[in-house]
Amino acid sequence: MVKRTSRDIRTANRYEVLRQIIAESPTSRQELAAATGLSLATVATLVGELLDLRMLTEVGFEDSAGGRPRGLVAVNAAGGALIGVDIAETYVRAELFDLGLNVLARAAEHMRPGESRPEQVVGHVTTAVGSVVAQAGIEGARVLGVGVSVPGQVDRVTGVAEYAPNWDWHDVPLLDLLTEHIAYPLHLDNPLRACAVAELWFGAARGHANAVVVNLGTGVGAGLVIGGGVHRGVSNSAGEWGHTTLVLDGRLCHCGNHGCVETYVGAPGIMLNLRELDPGGALLHPEDQTATVDALARGVAAGDPVAVKVVRDTARYLGAGISDLVNLLNPEIVVLSSWVAATLGEPLVAEVREAVARHALKRPLAATEIVLSPIPGDPVCLGAATFALEGALSSVTQRSSAARRGAPVPLKPV
Amino acid sequence: MVKRTSRDIRTANRYEVLRQIIAESPTSRQELAAATGLSLATVATLVGELLDLRMLTEVGFEDSAGGRPRGLVAVNAAGGALIGVDIAETYVRAELFDLGLNVLARAAEHMRPGESRPEQVVGHVTTAVGSVVAQAGIEGARVLGVGVSVPGQVDRVTGVAEYAPNWDWHDVPLLDLLTEHIAYPLHLDNPLRACAVAELWFGAARGHANAVVVNLGTGVGAGLVIGGGVHRGVSNSAGEWGHTTLVLDGRLCHCGNHGCVETYVGAPGIMLNLRELDPGGALLHPEDQTATVDALARGVAAGDPVAVKVVRDTARYLGAGISDLVNLLNPEIVVLSSWVAATLGEPLVAEVREAVARHALKRPLAATEIVLSPIPGDPVCLGAATFALEGALSSVTQRSSAARRGAPVPLKPV
Repeated sequence: MVKRTSRDIRTANRYEVLRQIIAESPTSRQELAAATGLSLATVATLVGELLDLRMLTEVGFEDSAGGRPRGLVAVNAAGGALIGVDIAETYVRAELFDLGLNVLARAAEHMRPGESRPEQVVGHVTTAVGSVVAQAGIEGARVLGVGVSVPGQVDRVTGVAEYAPNWDWHDVPLLDLLTEHIAYPLHLDNPLRACAVAELWFGAARGHANAVVVNLGTGVGAGLVIGGGVHRGVSNSAGEWGHTTLVLDGRLCHCGNHGCVETYVGAPGIMLNLRELDPGGALLHPEDQTATVDALARGVAAGDPVAVKVVRDTARYLGAGISDLVNLLNPEIVVLSSWVAATLGEPLVAEVREAVARHALKRPLAATEIVLSPIPGDPVCLGAATFALEGALSSVTQRSSAARRGAPVPLKPV
Repeated sequence: MVKRTSRDIRTANRYEVLRQIIAESPTSRQELAAATGLSLATVATLVGELLDLRMLTEVGFEDSAGGRPRGLVAVNAAGGALIGVDIAETYVRAELFDLGLNVLARAAEHMRPGESRPEQVVGHVTTAVGSVVAQAGIEGARVLGVGVSVPGQVDRVTGVAEYAPNWDWHDVPLLDLLTEHIAYPLHLDNPLRACAVAELWFGAARGHANAVVVNLGTGVGAGLVIGGGVHRGVSNSAGEWGHTTLVLDGRLCHCGNHGCVETYVGAPGIMLNLRELDPGGALLHPEDQTATVDALARGVAAGDPVAVKVVRDTARYLGAGISDLVNLLNPEIVVLSSWVAATLGEPLVAEVREAVARHALKRPLAATEIVLSPIPGDPVCLGAATFALEGALSSVTQRSSAARRGAPVPLKPV
């Protein structure tokens, strides 16, 4: 049964209003209504809820040319803190944000190759979270939640990391392990969703109903924004674009399949593109993805023909794979995110645009644009913190509807 | 700006209630509430609207063990007629339905290769529509609308067939041309959307929030059901899965790209698979897709090793391409539709299931099933008629809200 509820709409509207206030503070209810297309009555109700939660604060009145002065609201940045954790193949990063999603503290833990047992990773996460709370000098009680992005496929309900291909993790009860060390409310999901949520709330996908956030790192995938929300699929594994067959019977992928997009455009795939072109060349740092991609970026900037050719070859694969997404989903925008995209930057994006123009069908091509993520810093941390924000908003709703029904309101201990 | 309205929800709920009544008539408001998850008050309002429109009729009371007897409603099959038109590469079919979506009349026009100028196609559509109205012996005024499915990419608002690759149509003003000959309200879209809507209302996707309807004919594509509705994309061209690159630098496709899924699993692609395996064989009917696919189906049934091998090879390509959809969208169900799927039937589906099991990631694979469309007859005609039904429901809404505002209610002349 497909059950559509007005609660889904209310949640989406609450996000929309808060997004708008975060983007433009202070603002009036009237401006919010105009910007979101919601009625003034709806906006007033939602703003009231957010004021009750101390996520917003009243900040005076707007000068008005006659008529009643309009009350202004702003994000109550000090109303709470959110933590976003990015567990990647080679590092764990944590960032602590205020409610305006400004970074107050950062911590990073390096992980050596092979250092990927669940308890090792949990140790790094615990250290990084402790570090950002200490640095920010805030009381633990003010942390509204911790969003954790973990590679691969994650069951959001049980908190089990079902499959992380680069580590060969299977059914790791990550939420349970983290809960032993971290007392804040925890929200798990994967980097595809984190990047998509970050772009939707704060980046290039803001205000778009249909967007694709292509994540280019060690692994690759696509966060899908459909109908103004993140599309998760029936078991929260949507977006595995990295395992689209691009070259039937092509390179072997760790998923067991051959010719997956990821084997050509993930960082190890790019290293292989380089090795095939220039086996003994100076750009290749065997065993070091970051150094190799950095060297490629510098090489392109310096006009090194090998670097230019490798980026062009990679863009050709990417162009075909992104065209698949454009043809299939007909999005308004394709955003290139994560560290490989950030490092190779505009030269890569320019090549990708040309390749997509050669591959994609005219009608969807004309409707879409391809851009680099405008989010400074780590979009995965930001997106993970946004999960925590969404979680805080939804637990708040449950509390306030319980309160409306006259039930006792248990506050979640942290 | 992403504007979510309660009207979208109301429309979706109206569809859901009508779908349920069409599936199970007679029924009570209470049963409808239980089946749809909507409140009894909402169901009562929606049923009231549909009664006002004479789409439903009251049919007495349910026996009840005490308490107030429950009123029963049923589809008012005679309340209007809907026509669905399937414009394909080799034929034009029209079917006339009552409001219970039972076929009352059918007509088909054969199109010879090359007979694909817009005015020729419009002539066939006009003849077929005239024929089903005459056969059904109904007054024209009872036809609530005509849905027309046209291959390729269609602008639903302007009614322009923007690109039909198999005919090399570019920007054909099809709606304008049809309007010169057909006086009923017309609703244009493409076969991907028609098959998706047919499965969502009446077929294997009923009750699923996330489904993919894979359309296997001369052209191939995927109708996408996401969040309980058809995903059209920003310019109504979503679903062009046929132009996903499966074999980089592979077979040349009429879209200008190489290695598209369609070149391996569309009917001409299957003919090429056969020709490559058995160049002078008896199964191949050059220039006749239908006869060749029929011969393959008979060959598989008879255990002909060439036919078995061709279907297996085709399923291997299909399996890789469908795995891309499973990995990317994480659907609950994949439905194989259109004439090639219907002709090759369960032997094809069995091979496809095996191939997808080899290619797809475990988590999305475990969440999905692959089935043959259960819709008897032409799902494209049924889906196109459903566009007309959706159109009639939405014009009704506009009238009834105009009436509620006290405005005059213009009835659409037919």
